[in-house]
Amino acid sequence: MSDKRVYTACILVIGNEILSGRTKDENIAHLAKTLNEWGIRVRECRVIPDVEDTIVRTVNEVRAAFDYVFTTGGIGPTHDDITADSIAKAFGVKNVIHPEALAILVGHYGGRDKVNPARLRMAHAPEGAELIHNPVSKAPGFRIGNVYVMAGVPRIMQNMLEGLKGKLAGGDPVRATSIDAGMPEGILAEGLGAIQNRFPDVDIGSYPYSRNGKHGTSLVMRTADVARLNAATEEVRTLVRQMGGNPIDEAVG
Amino acid sequence: MSDKRVYTACILVIGNEILSGRTKDENIAHLAKTLNEWGIRVRECRVIPDVEDTIVRTVNEVRAAFDYVFTTGGIGPTHDDITADSIAKAFGVKNVIHPEALAILVGHYGGRDKVNPARLRMAHAPEGAELIHNPVSKAPGFRIGNVYVMAGVPRIMQNMLEGLKGKLAGGDPVRATSIDAGMPEGILAEGLGAIQNRFPDVDIGSYPYSRNGKHGTSLVMRTADVARLNAATEEVRTLVRQMGGNPIDEAVG
Repeated sequence: MSDKRVYTACILVIGNEILSGRTKDENIAHLAKTLNEWGIRVRECRVIPDVEDTIVRTVNEVRAAFDYVFTTGGIGPTHDDITADSIAKAFGVKNVIHPEALAILVGHYGGRDKVNPARLRMAHAPEGAELIHNPVSKAPGFRIGNVYVMAGVPRIMQNMLEGLKGKLAGGDPVRATSIDAGMPEGILAEGLGAIQNRFPDVDIGSYPYSRNGKHGTSLVMRTADVARLNAATEEVRTLVRQMGGNPIDEAVG
Repeated sequence: MSDKRVYTACILVIGNEILSGRTKDENIAHLAKTLNEWGIRVRECRVIPDVEDTIVRTVNEVRAAFDYVFTTGGIGPTHDDITADSIAKAFGVKNVIHPEALAILVGHYGGRDKVNPARLRMAHAPEGAELIHNPVSKAPGFRIGNVYVMAGVPRIMQNMLEGLKGKLAGGDPVRATSIDAGMPEGILAEGLGAIQNRFPDVDIGSYPYSRNGKHGTSLVMRTADVARLNAATEEVRTLVRQMGGNPIDEAVG
């Protein structure tokens, strides 16, 4: 087992449109996968509304509990974009015009006079924040403390995140294997529990599926330690064979 | 504005597979839409891992803060299915065999001897819980207090939820309209903020989109009061026309 430090993260999805069901979140899965590749483990996600008190309270709770917080949503020009104001309040600082952000917007819109009061909101960031660049639509996100504030539109969020690559401290990434057991999980459960007991350092997940009327199970093993991962995976293959099945390696998904 | 009581809910998605990015959550959007139709407003969602302490702590926090809690995931037969145990612990009761659940499983698997120790886990529920039936794969969910515990597999969760229809107290459903403004939100933001100020009881959301290289904005109005909804929507249409656009009614999504 690796003894390197484990880095943890919480994802905060900010937006009424997710809570109403209008918009399906696409950011959590992308963030979770990417951050894991960088050695940062997402331990919790929350979806919260565009309500200042809720954002302030939640940000202060999770930034104390995790190494990193990544937020998506609420950084546009309209009245419902209150993320920057709320994060500033959470940190007890003012939300001010960031000169570099203003310069970016002036360039993008073609003159200071084109940056109307609404667009000027997107040039604001909490005092002391540094920008997270937005190669798609220019209006930047920002980092303050351990909180990374990004757009909600998936393509913009993904590009902002890509710009953080190599800049965040992380540990060993978690590696995973997946075995399609081709049988219901109720048959495997006892043996699988025994393997989990022998490999407390490996996270073993069992995910039933039903495809074309066939009930099967995907068994997913996760750990940062490749040797332990391979050993646990081999035991799982053996278990599946013992129960009369044919274990098939599959993409983790 | 309606003066009927507002009923609130929190969704808890329990499962490492969402936090690792392996599985994209599909339950939040379905739950949010369905519950709103029943007059219950989803105010927060959390995704948490298969870790007992975290589940216990989170359930106890959110069941005190919201009228309803709906959980998905972790009620299968394997070692990582710890939701029922954890919910029992949160309520300070034992997780016991529920006679009706056992009868269902015995019928489904074709005899008591086919209900092995792993499958017997699915016959358990916290003392005092009542079952939530599962027409898809039989193993039931349950309700205890204001916490509704359902499967993580979307088709099973959706069927379990359907069985709760008409059984949950709710208020007026929130109605929504959506206008495609066909122009960037930065142009609309100032006027939109003024409308929001005149309609503090209507939740007005602005969602930029980019389709086929065209930048537009969907404006979504939400409230339980139909007259106020229509009045706010008409003002939004007028605003879009004033800014030189052509407001198009669209499905809320």
